[in-house]
Amino acid sequence: MPRTDFSRMRCPVARTMEVMGERWVILLMREAFYGVTRFDGFQRALGIAPNILSARLRKLVQYGIFARVPTSAHRGRYDYRLTDKGRDFFPAYVALKCWGDRWMAGPKGPLVLFREKHTGVALPPPSLVSSTGRRIEPEDVDVVPGPAANSFIRRRFGQREA
Amino acid sequence: MPRTDFSRMRCPVARTMEVMGERWVILLMREAFYGVTRFDGFQRALGIAPNILSARLRKLVQYGIFARVPTSAHRGRYDYRLTDKGRDFFPAYVALKCWGDRWMAGPKGPLVLFREKHTGVALPPPSLVSSTGRRIEPEDVDVVPGPAANSFIRRRFGQREA
Repeated sequence: MPRTDFSRMRCPVARTMEVMGERWVILLMREAFYGVTRFDGFQRALGIAPNILSARLRKLVQYGIFARVPTSAHRGRYDYRLTDKGRDFFPAYVALKCWGDRWMAGPKGPLVLFREKHTGVALPPPSLVSSTGRRIEPEDVDVVPGPAANSFIRRRFGQREA
Repeated sequence: MPRTDFSRMRCPVARTMEVMGERWVILLMREAFYGVTRFDGFQRALGIAPNILSARLRKLVQYGIFARVPTSAHRGRYDYRLTDKGRDFFPAYVALKCWGDRWMAGPKGPLVLFREKHTGVALPPPSLVSSTGRRIEPEDVDVVPGPAANSFIRRRFGQREA
């Protein structure tokens, strides 16, 4: 059996999934994007056991995705607010929702729809459009070594730099 | 403890994560987007044990994300090709990569970069832009019940329809 080269496992998408790929975590992100900030708000929306909710909130705070902020009105209570890192996940969340609504929903379609507040227009899916306005497909992309590339990545993708 | 209402768990993003959230699965998607189609190609790129690779490929075929196609040149060998459903995940994959590169990469930055083949220009991150060209933030979005909404979702989000 070939040995796993863990240096190839530093893939940022794999790292992203180690946090966001967990079922409760992605549901907490959903609720945070819907405006929920309180422990009991998350609990009510998800029907999640308090010990599991505590553990997942702690994880999201550890990763800097949520910030735990004392609630001014209630001593000893906290709000869990999306940080810039957490807010910046919104386009990825919407991209996952669009794919899920299209390919993983039941026969009746999506559970909820996103609309722009100011216009009432359905939110367009995040698009991958080239500098010339064309839709980008996987074949349109060259993978080239980045600043953190190791020798494996340079050997694999380096010739495309020429 | 409140009971979990599993009807609220039909969230398409949660369903998406049940497949894509798994570490090897998302790495197989990455390799497929890089153009890998053969069992031994996936194995070489990932250093994954053959039994795990078989199980994950089977799962991706079951979900209709990969199609198992006999290789014309070799009897009894197969290509694993992205279906339309699999290809349609590319914008979500790129959105996850952009977030991961920005927030989850090591100090040296991204491992690989994506460039448009025809222009050599760095691939722009999938953007979430309103009909009027503004960047959309979570606060700019209204959540409204969709066609598959149950009574819980209608109670929670229904008043926004008025």
